[in-house]
Order: sequence, then structure tokens, then C-alpha cells
Amino acid sequence: MLIVGELINTSRKAIAEAVDNKDAEYIKKIAQEQVDSGANYLDVNCGTQVFNEVESMEWLVNAIQELVQIPLCIDSPNPKALAAGLALCKYGQPMINSITDEKERVKAVLPLAVQYKAKLVALCMDDTGMPETAADRMRVVDSLYAKLSNQGIPDEDIYFDPLIKPISSVDTAGEEVLGTIKGIKSTHPEVHFMCGLSNVSYGLPNRKVLNRLFVVQTMTLGMDGYILNPTDKGMMGTIAASKALLGQDSFCVNYLKAHREGLYAE
Amino acid sequence: MLIVGELINTSRKAIAEAVDNKDAEYIKKIAQEQVDSGANYLDVNCGTQVFNEVESMEWLVNAIQELVQIPLCIDSPNPKALAAGLALCKYGQPMINSITDEKERVKAVLPLAVQYKAKLVALCMDDTGMPETAADRMRVVDSLYAKLSNQGIPDEDIYFDPLIKPISSVDTAGEEVLGTIKGIKSTHPEVHFMCGLSNVSYGLPNRKVLNRLFVVQTMTLGMDGYILNPTDKGMMGTIAASKALLGQDSFCVNYLKAHREGLYAE
Repeated sequence: MLIVGELINTSRKAIAEAVDNKDAEYIKKIAQEQVDSGANYLDVNCGTQVFNEVESMEWLVNAIQELVQIPLCIDSPNPKALAAGLALCKYGQPMINSITDEKERVKAVLPLAVQYKAKLVALCMDDTGMPETAADRMRVVDSLYAKLSNQGIPDEDIYFDPLIKPISSVDTAGEEVLGTIKGIKSTHPEVHFMCGLSNVSYGLPNRKVLNRLFVVQTMTLGMDGYILNPTDKGMMGTIAASKALLGQDSFCVNYLKAHREGLYAE
Repeated sequence: MLIVGELINTSRKAIAEAVDNKDAEYIKKIAQEQVDSGANYLDVNCGTQVFNEVESMEWLVNAIQELVQIPLCIDSPNPKALAAGLALCKYGQPMINSITDEKERVKAVLPLAVQYKAKLVALCMDDTGMPETAADRMRVVDSLYAKLSNQGIPDEDIYFDPLIKPISSVDTAGEEVLGTIKGIKSTHPEVHFMCGLSNVSYGLPNRKVLNRLFVVQTMTLGMDGYILNPTDKGMMGTIAASKALLGQDSFCVNYLKAHREGLYAE
């Protein structure tokens, strides 16, 4: 299981302000809180800084690494920002968020993954757009997997994102994701998974409930990576309980630790 | 999805007292509450009344049916109590809880299922005792399925109970149940499932959390029946949310209804 902390993202107002004001202390505080809460990687995204994304990425990566020694997930639609962030990563194996099977994206991002021996989040989409069904997604998976393997990316560095869409707009949106996970597990058993969760509940009440239960459903089928807010106790408690039930927690040690830490207090 | 309400059971003190005092009003109240909360069947169990179980079963079945017109799940280790209860069921197709692959149990219970055209909860155990692994359970499933089919019990009337044991005593207890569900779905795709949940969390804190998440995990693999307390709002809300995420709730209508009914209030 790999938890990528999502909080350092300039689409969040407090982070955008910290970047604008070069408030490194605030960034470090958010980094430390995520690590203390159980994040294995920290996502770094300043995609909203359209006029100075490269400089902002460099500043953020340096600011975080002044305090915490954790691998980073460099997250941008802009290959130049990806390259700038990757060049500064000091701790562990960096992660790139993300590649797709779009021709231009493959051309720009795949060489970075090779150069930095990075883990790579691979979105199930291509130049034809966002897929609807599990079968559509599997066509992208197979096409993109071939390109990544061909360039020597090992299976264990590939993290497929099945692209979660809202069940409020299409009833079967969750089901298609679950079908995609089953498909990937059967055809490429050694690759990993990574996704954000909040899309699934868009437009519905009690979003936290839906997001948590979708973690449980996807984990049951073998999903093993999430980009989320690790300071959300209910979510982290759900993951710990789910692992215990799935036989991934010897003597329920981590579940009992989560209990002592108050993750089930709500 | 079939929800069997579990509350009419003389192992619960208030029910035992109501039976002892022939307090039909209390029994009817508990029956009505379960139906109002979404139960599709009501379990009736007076197995603790060892000296007059047959009479108690008859009294309970009649008391419930004075008020609610719902099919009953007649639940007893005693074939005489099963026969007495089944003979009085007036509404819909009755359910027998339960048969096992123990020789004496098959001999005593299978004829009742045939006679009353009843749905049948089939526990994955035999004369060698409680199985440990999914493979052990599947051997019982295949053996018992053959006997039931041979007597003309249709697949859609068979409800396998994979026998949940505590993860606090064996780490893999949940995993073996999930493996059993996968096995049954692939070998006997038309049969159904039925189980109680609370065993899984025995000996651990936050039992409600674990019980609810185990419902989500088992539903993800195709489990479609539970014996539970339907007045537990958190549990019923979990099931409604899980169905919406699995694409089993057109336009999320039932999820939104559950929201309006306050099932996500906690």
C-alpha cells in the first residue's frame, strides 16, 4: 500500500498563498503533518501557477526537503515543471504524476521516467479522450504498458490510475473502475495502482462516506495506492481496518495502533 | 440483496422475557421495526428455550404474523422446531436456517426444504468440523450442492454461508471468506449467499466499523444476503452506499433516500 499525501497543491488557497508569499514554514508544516499521518510520498502540484510553474515547483521541492526526507510525487501537466521538480528530488525514488497514452504526453514524459528511474502514474486515457467502460480503459492499459515496457520501465514502477468518474452522472462509473482493476490484475499482475478518490462522490451528499467505501471496494480487488489527505482520520482508519480484514495486518497490530491513535473516534 | 432481520432471537434477553411472558405486543413491535427499517425476511430463533422450543417457535411465528405479512427465516438446530415453524408460515417463501453437510443434519433438514419449497441457508461445514481455508470450505460447498441439487432444490433457493471467523484469532480469517465467495461465484454462479457478520470482529475494538467494512468487501465480490440488525442505521447506510458504488442503484435513488432518512447522520 502506497499513500501519496495530496495537500501540497496550489489549487488549495492556503498553499497558493504560501507559494506567492514564499512562506516555506507553512509548506514544511503541511509536509510534516502528512508524513506524521502516514503518507509514504508527498504530491507536489503547482499547476495553477501558470506563469511561473517551473520556479514554483523548484521552490516547493526545496522547501519540503529542507524539513522532511521523503520521496516526492512531482505532479504537473507541464513536462518542464516535471523535469524541474525531478532534478531537485533528493530522497528515495521520485514519482511522476502522470503519463497518459496521448502521443505528445508519451513523447514528453516517458524520457523523464527513464532518466530519473522514477515511478510513473499512468492514467487510462489517450488521444481519443476519457474512456467510458472497463474495456475502453483496458485498451489504453495494454497500449501504454507496451510503450513503458519497451523503454525498460519495470512493472513495479508502473502505477495505473483507472480514472474514477462520478456515479452521480453515470450509474456504472464505479463498476467500470472495479472491472478495470480486475482486468489489470489478471493481465499485468506485477504493476501497481494509484488514484484519487473524490471524483466518485461528486454531486452527492455524504461524500466522505462514499469515498471511504470506494477505497474498501477497490482494495478488495487489489488496488494498492491512493492519492489522498492522510490527515483525514476516518479515511486512514478505514484503510487500516480494511487491511486487517484482508489479512494484510499480522495480529491486527496496525489496526490496534490506529485504534489507540483515535482514528475510529468519530 | 436480501436482508434478514436478526432481532427476534431468544439469546437476546428482552426477547426471551417476551416469550416467557407471552408478550406478543413486544414481539410484534420488534417485527414491525425491522420491516420498517428494510428487512426482507425476519429470522425467528428460540434455540435457548431448550425445554419448550417447539411451542415457543409456534407462538413466535403466530405472534409475528398477527401483525406483519413478511416471509420468515425459521432458525433452529432442532429439526422439530424447524418443522413446527415452517408449518405455520403464511406469507411468501419461507427460509430454513440452516443445513450443513453433516450427515444427520442433511437427513433431517433436506426433506423439510423439499416439503416446504423453502429457501435454505447452507453452512460450509460438515462432520469434520469447522473449515479453516477457502479450499476446505469449497469441498463442503461442492459436496452439499450436489446433495441439494439431487433433491431438486433450485440454485436460486440455496444461500451459502461461508462461515465467518474472527480475524483476531487467525489473521487470514477474512481473506478465506473472500476466497470462498470468489470460489462459489465461479463454480455455482446462480446460488445466493447469507451470513451473519459480527464474528469477524470478535475480540477487537470498533466492532461496528469492522462489521460494516466487511459487508462492503464481501458485497464487492458478489455476496448478496446478510443476517443483521436492520435498525442499525450505520450498517444500512453502508449497504445503500455500497450498492450505489457497485452500480446497483439506478440514479442513486436509494442512496439519496437513505440520506434523507438520516442513515449517514453519525
